[in-house]
Amino acid sequence: MQAINHSSVVAGYTPYIESLADLTNGKELIVSGMMQERERCRAALQRAYEGATVALVSSGDAGVYGMAGLALEMAEAESLQVAIEIIPGISAANAAAARLGAPLMLDYACISLSDLLVPWERIRRRIELLAEADMVLALYNPRSTKRVRQLEETVEILRRHRPATTPVGIVTAASSPDETITLTTLSGLLEQSVTMRSLVIIGNSDTRLLNGLLVTSRGYSL
Amino acid sequence: MQAINHSSVVAGYTPYIESLADLTNGKELIVSGMMQERERCRAALQRAYEGATVALVSSGDAGVYGMAGLALEMAEAESLQVAIEIIPGISAANAAAARLGAPLMLDYACISLSDLLVPWERIRRRIELLAEADMVLALYNPRSTKRVRQLEETVEILRRHRPATTPVGIVTAASSPDETITLTTLSGLLEQSVTMRSLVIIGNSDTRLLNGLLVTSRGYSL
Repeated sequence: MQAINHSSVVAGYTPYIESLADLTNGKELIVSGMMQERERCRAALQRAYEGATVALVSSGDAGVYGMAGLALEMAEAESLQVAIEIIPGISAANAAAARLGAPLMLDYACISLSDLLVPWERIRRRIELLAEADMVLALYNPRSTKRVRQLEETVEILRRHRPATTPVGIVTAASSPDETITLTTLSGLLEQSVTMRSLVIIGNSDTRLLNGLLVTSRGYSL
Repeated sequence: MQAINHSSVVAGYTPYIESLADLTNGKELIVSGMMQERERCRAALQRAYEGATVALVSSGDAGVYGMAGLALEMAEAESLQVAIEIIPGISAANAAAARLGAPLMLDYACISLSDLLVPWERIRRRIELLAEADMVLALYNPRSTKRVRQLEETVEILRRHRPATTPVGIVTAASSPDETITLTTLSGLLEQSVTMRSLVIIGNSDTRLLNGLLVTSRGYSL
């Protein structure tokens, strides 16, 4: 928010910028749709190179499946010498976890099921090892209308290592007016509504349902 | 911050509460030292049960190696029926990542090297599988004055899967006046100052040093 206040230009994915309307009054806007990250990032860097102070907005934490890395890589590749400051945010996994209880209390992994930029075989291999390592998993981009197989395979892999009753939480559109929270299990996950706005948290052997909340125990004796 | 403003009681580890002095004026304080989490949590829950609005403070995200899970577990174990709201924060990994560049841009794991509550053999096994999975790692509690072997073994395991030149970042006392940032490599890590206030991020095969910053590439063609 402070970064936006201090900037004369604000760049971001159209719906994010629309949701920030009360902060962007009178500012120059660089808005564009999904899959246009590169164009948006290039335009933002260009304005910064010309001397403007630019806020390039991501949802959640810009440093986790956000725009931070792309901006640093592009500035280097195109020799645009601009000062870039990364401002951390609350990532979708942390926001969803707080709505579900405390499922990320200890060792956990964030993994994206989108195979747009990473081959599915590589993601799949990671899931196999994470399942074996009994890590709590935060699944980013779990499913879209066109991409459903990845979540099915993920459940199939996890079922070889974890019981059907393993607690699972789904938070869709976290912190927005459309937010929904669903508690289910590994065997029930595929029957639930999971969209590209969902974050799925899959418990490990220490995760339990306590008073309607997911808690992964750190092992304190109480 | 809002949670503290809305509370009449503030509970936390002594140095955290001291650092919040400007927010706690006139409020009842429950402060205690390290390793006294259970006593502090019990006292906080007790005051909430008596009707007070209590803010139980963690550093970073209360839901990641913080107090959220303990509070939920203890409330259930002791049948203290109090409304508990978990407010997410910026976890140490996300804060450190932003200072280092963008090392957590895609799949990564948070793992604590402390074997106070989890047997070292279990942690060690996880590290082996995470190393094999080519996950970027955020190491919590990497080393203390008494506990140095765990970080040595972690480097030894990772060296079987990743080159000596793998980029590593260390952020100590993130976001405090004492903050230090160190960039090194897997083979140089053990020679650096790493304390219990440090967060260590170890890159994977996609992590590079760009203009003095760590960046894990998502694979966009630029």
